[in-house]
Parts: sequence; structure tokens; C-alpha cells
Amino acid sequence: MQVTVRGRRRHYRTVTFEATANVVELIEQRLLPHEFTFFRSPNFRQTARAIRDMVVRGAPAIAATAAYGLAQGAQAFRGRDLKKFSAHLDLVFQTLKEARPTAVDPVNAMLQVRRIMERGESVEEQQALAVAAAEQFAEEDVAHCAAIGRHGAKLIKNGLRVLTHCNAGWLATVDIGTATAPLYEAQRRGRKFHVFCDETRPRCQGASLTAWELAQQGIAHQVIADNAAGHLMQRGEIDLVIVGSDRTLGRTGEVANKIGTYTKAVLAHRHGIPFYVAIPLSTIDWELKRGFDIPIEERADHEVLGAWGVVAKPEAKVPVPNSGRRAYVRIANPASTARNPGFDVTPAELITGIITPVGIFKPRELWSRRRELQTAG
Amino acid sequence: MQVTVRGRRRHYRTVTFEATANVVELIEQRLLPHEFTFFRSPNFRQTARAIRDMVVRGAPAIAATAAYGLAQGAQAFRGRDLKKFSAHLDLVFQTLKEARPTAVDPVNAMLQVRRIMERGESVEEQQALAVAAAEQFAEEDVAHCAAIGRHGAKLIKNGLRVLTHCNAGWLATVDIGTATAPLYEAQRRGRKFHVFCDETRPRCQGASLTAWELAQQGIAHQVIADNAAGHLMQRGEIDLVIVGSDRTLGRTGEVANKIGTYTKAVLAHRHGIPFYVAIPLSTIDWELKRGFDIPIEERADHEVLGAWGVVAKPEAKVPVPNSGRRAYVRIANPASTARNPGFDVTPAELITGIITPVGIFKPRELWSRRRELQTAG
Repeated sequence: MQVTVRGRRRHYRTVTFEATANVVELIEQRLLPHEFTFFRSPNFRQTARAIRDMVVRGAPAIAATAAYGLAQGAQAFRGRDLKKFSAHLDLVFQTLKEARPTAVDPVNAMLQVRRIMERGESVEEQQALAVAAAEQFAEEDVAHCAAIGRHGAKLIKNGLRVLTHCNAGWLATVDIGTATAPLYEAQRRGRKFHVFCDETRPRCQGASLTAWELAQQGIAHQVIADNAAGHLMQRGEIDLVIVGSDRTLGRTGEVANKIGTYTKAVLAHRHGIPFYVAIPLSTIDWELKRGFDIPIEERADHEVLGAWGVVAKPEAKVPVPNSGRRAYVRIANPASTARNPGFDVTPAELITGIITPVGIFKPRELWSRRRELQTAG
Repeated sequence: MQVTVRGRRRHYRTVTFEATANVVELIEQRLLPHEFTFFRSPNFRQTARAIRDMVVRGAPAIAATAAYGLAQGAQAFRGRDLKKFSAHLDLVFQTLKEARPTAVDPVNAMLQVRRIMERGESVEEQQALAVAAAEQFAEEDVAHCAAIGRHGAKLIKNGLRVLTHCNAGWLATVDIGTATAPLYEAQRRGRKFHVFCDETRPRCQGASLTAWELAQQGIAHQVIADNAAGHLMQRGEIDLVIVGSDRTLGRTGEVANKIGTYTKAVLAHRHGIPFYVAIPLSTIDWELKRGFDIPIEERADHEVLGAWGVVAKPEAKVPVPNSGRRAYVRIANPASTARNPGFDVTPAELITGIITPVGIFKPRELWSRRRELQTAG
């Protein structure tokens, strides 16, 4: 998407690969929204570390990063011995996989790259195919997001007030995003609308990343405390909710997503407000039989007991980026502990529709149309 | 309630008055949970400033502070001229009233003190009556909270897991608290239970004040992000919700309380979890006809765009109090703005019961039993 850096406006992707220099370049998301810089990784180990340390996050974005990392590792191999090359690739694969051991998307992305590589008959051919396959994976991700945007944009009418949760934006994908794609496409079509960004405690990806994205694209928006959505719905100030998903069950239409999503769905349902989930088809889990069995990660206490930001004067409307010192502050009583579930599961009955690259479906339609959806990806 | 300071355990009230020294003493709540200190106010102007600057907050606590402040101002008068004394009292009254212009409780408290003072026939007699009346007001507040505790304690069974929102604790009253009173009374009766404290963004009174209170009383508790309650209810981990109220409509049973309360009520209703509101009778508004007409204060953006705390290492479980520097950090995108409604309104249909000093009522019972309730206060 477009970003203005020191007055100059340019298009950036979350992750890119410079094949000749063999460098993976990532937007350094840990410094957003306060600094816009890049993390340039010269080798696959650094790329794995960047995934592990959350320079890049979001399932599609880390999947593309892993695909590029595999190509990067492949290109670094010197020699013609296919067997040694294969052993080297196993190491690269394992290193990148272990960077986020619970994520399934990077593994699927790397398997796709390896399958294509196998068509090559020499190390050199396989290296070239690795780069091409990784590029193809990234391009497919962009195409899927663009398609989600085209299908979803029809929902974003002029004057609409939209609620989002967390960041399923372009920073979580290679470009465009999932939940944000309909917004960006509607804006491209000239529509005017307003977005409320749930701050999304404890990690505040809505306040930091989604608000930053929308500001860069010039979309009208306001940050709200997660507590405020119910009141705004009650007063008739929210017309539509769009969120992303970390895993959607093909059999039941249940949606796992960032903690707090379920609460927004319950509120939207009570107020008759449409609730949509935007997903690439790779997010659909066709195996699991019920949402209750989705493992819910319990994260560290300190995320809930405090917050990260830049030290600033409270009243300062626009602190100059880079001017403040980044810090973690402890908010809660020092002697108290926390519960910190990272995700929750929203049942199908609360979901109006699931926006995919091939169209919008009722949650329960996913299973009846599985043949079409399983082959479309 | 009991507080341990440097190893010594003692009973403290949120606000006390040393009549001979003519000093109002307040727990300095702006430094909690990181420091436990006192703000000693030597005159009514300082007392008004303490109310304005939120050294003390919570309707019953600022009402008692204003009552003491009026007595303090009365005692400072030198002379025997009742007319001059009355003019002086008007000034004191006005100064204390203007400290929190939208709050109605301090005004009612001060009117009660003045009514009692009028029985005195000399300045000296009226000064003595002012002190006695202010003490009586504070004692009544403690008695009301204790009665809420006795009525509510029967709900807090062994093994119960209770959700609270914001701080309707003893720090918001003279002692014991409203929403916390049933918990403290149940603990006194030897029951074991667990409390989840909503952190209550944006000002985080749950994470800082309620968690601190419960820790001081040795009640098992954990802080949760406001986003997490829905998930915990879905997994059957919450049995009861208790909150306080800033204003309860006698005609409809609607409850205005800290932003996010309505969301918790909607979730509790969906999951069949009892939702109780604990209030002193002074919180009941017998005039207003519908909750929609309760003015909802829109607060400053910076509360939502950032957070206050003590700079700490994220992983440090128990940073030593006083060791960190207090700071405000900007979390959100610097160029973004916020919506920040301070309160919301919960309809009667979502409320299981209202715990008052004279018993537990269905929300709609308040009106049919208004004669009893209006005279009980």
C-alpha cells in the first residue's frame, strides 16, 4: 500500500525479496506506528529470527516471509551435489519452521515452494525455481487479498460506519490485507466511510497498526477502547463489523480470531448489525470438527499487566515520531497476575458472512461448497 | 480496609478528618497501585483541589470529602457574625462544588451538612454541628456499604468465580466499597472464591485499583483484558458478575456505569450468568424517565491513545514500588484521534438484581417499592 515517508509517497509491500542480492526485506513492525523502517535480512537464519521476534506477524505475511526465506537459503547453497543441496534445504526448512512453531501457514508455503523446486533437475535449476515459486506465493497472496477486496467492497456503502478489531490489514499479509481489503477497494472506488478501530488489548494492534494503515491511506477513522463498541452500537453509530480470522472451521463455520472478536460478534448480533469475517482460503481448516477443540494460546501475563508505547506528554496530539523513548509501563497492581487468552472462537450463528477471494458465503455454506472452495485456493 | 505498609498491617479509610488539626486526609489514589501515600489537606481550597485533581474519586468518596471540606471551611472561620459566617460557607460550598461540576453526590452531601448546621444558634455551635454532620455522613456511607455487603454476601458461594468491572471498591467510598462489599463480607465469613478484574480501559481502574484492593485483602484474583471476559464465559469460567453504578434510574431500572459495563451485561445474559449491580440508595435517580437521556461524558482522546504506568521490564513479575518512573506512553498511531465515551447504560432486562443496603431488588422493583426506598436512605 501507499506510505508517505518524509513527504514522499510510495508503494510498499510488507515483505519483498531482492533475488540478486539474496536479501529479504521486511517492514519493521515492532517500531510501528512510531517509526517506519526496514529490516533487511542477509540470510535465512536472520529471516527466521525476524519471524520469531515478530518483525513481521500475521499468518499470510509470515508464510510469504518463510517462502522467501527458503528461496534465500536455497540460493546461498554453493555446489552441484543435489543430495547435499537437499540436506541443506531440510535445515533451512526446519530453521524457518521453528521460528513460529504453532503456525501452519509458513509450513504450507514452504511445502508449496519445495514441490515446485522438485521439477528442477540440477541445483541451479532448483534454485531458480525456488525464487520463482516464492514470488508466485507472494503474488498469489496479493491476488487473494485483492479478490477479497472486490467481493467485500460492495458492503462498504457511502456514509457507512465500520468497526474493525485487531489488525487483519496489509501489514498482516504481503499487501492489501484481508479485513481491510474491502475498505481499501471501496476507497479506490471513491466511497466515503468511517472506521472505528478497536484498540485490541492487550497488544493494541488496532490502535497501533490498523490506525496507522488507515491514516496512511487517508481513511477517516478513530481509535476506541474495546469497552466502547457496545455503547456505540447501542447509540446507532456502527453499521457493519469486519474482522479477520486465524482459523475458520470448514465443517461448522466457527471462526477463531484475536481475543475480543467473539464479544463484538455477540454485541453486533444483539443490535442486528452485520458481522463479516474476511479470510483467504488457506485459513479454512477442513478437518477439525468443533471450535471448542481449537487450542487457545495463553500468552504472558505482562501483556495484560502493562503496555508498550512511546513516552509522551498525554495531551500532545501528534508526538513527533522518533522523539519519544520506547518503553513498557506496568499499569496493574505489581503483585497481581493475569489471565491472557490470545484468541476466542465465534460461532456461525453470529456471523453474517465470510468474505473469501471467490465470493461471500454464509458460514455453514463453507462445508456444502467444500469441493469448489478446496480446489479454488 | 486493611493495608500492609512496610510490613505493618493497619486499617485505613479512603478519607478521614482530623477535627482538632482541621486536616482532611486522603489516600493519594493517583499514585496507586505503585505507592501508598496520603494527601493531607490543610484547608478547604486544597481539599477542593484534591477532588478536582482526582486524588480521590468515586461518587461516595468525593461526597464524604466534600462534606469534610465544608466542615473544614466552617472551622476555619474566625468571628461570631452569623451573616458573615453564612457568606463564608457559601464560598466554601461553591468552591467544593466546582471541583467536579457534574457530580451530584458532593452537593447532596454538603446540603445535608448545612441542614444540620442550621440547628445551631451561634457560629461556634454551627461549627461543631458541621464536624458532627460530616462525620455522620461518612459513617452512614460506611454503614450503607456494610449493609450492601451483608445482603450481597449470600451470592458469593464457595468456589465461585466472579467478574468485576472498574473500581467500585473501598477506594471509591469511605470504606468497604459497593461492588466489592459482598466479596469482602464473604471473605470475612470464610468463603473462598476467585475474582477476575476487567482491566477497564482506558483508565484501567480495574487493573490498578481493584486488583490492588483485592491483593491487600488477600482475595485470589487475576487481571484480564476487557476483551477476555466473553471467552472466559464461553468456557464456563465465570459464575457471577458484580459491578457498581454511577446512576441508576428508579423508574426503569437502567444502570449507568463505567464504559464496558453494558458489554459485560450482554455477554452474561447470553451465557445465563447472573449480573448484579451494587449501589447505595443515593445513586438512584427518581426523576429521569429513560436511560437514553443520561448524559454520557466524552473524555479526552489521550486516555484511549495511551496509558499511564511505571516504566518497568515487561517480564518483571513484581517491580518494587517506587522504583520505576511514572510515565504516560502513547500506544496508538500518533496521527490518529479517538472516541472516548466514559459511561454506558445497561437496560433492566440484562440485570439479575440490584444489591442495595436494604436488600436485593429486581431492577423494575425499584419503582414499585419507591416509597420504602426513598425513605430508607
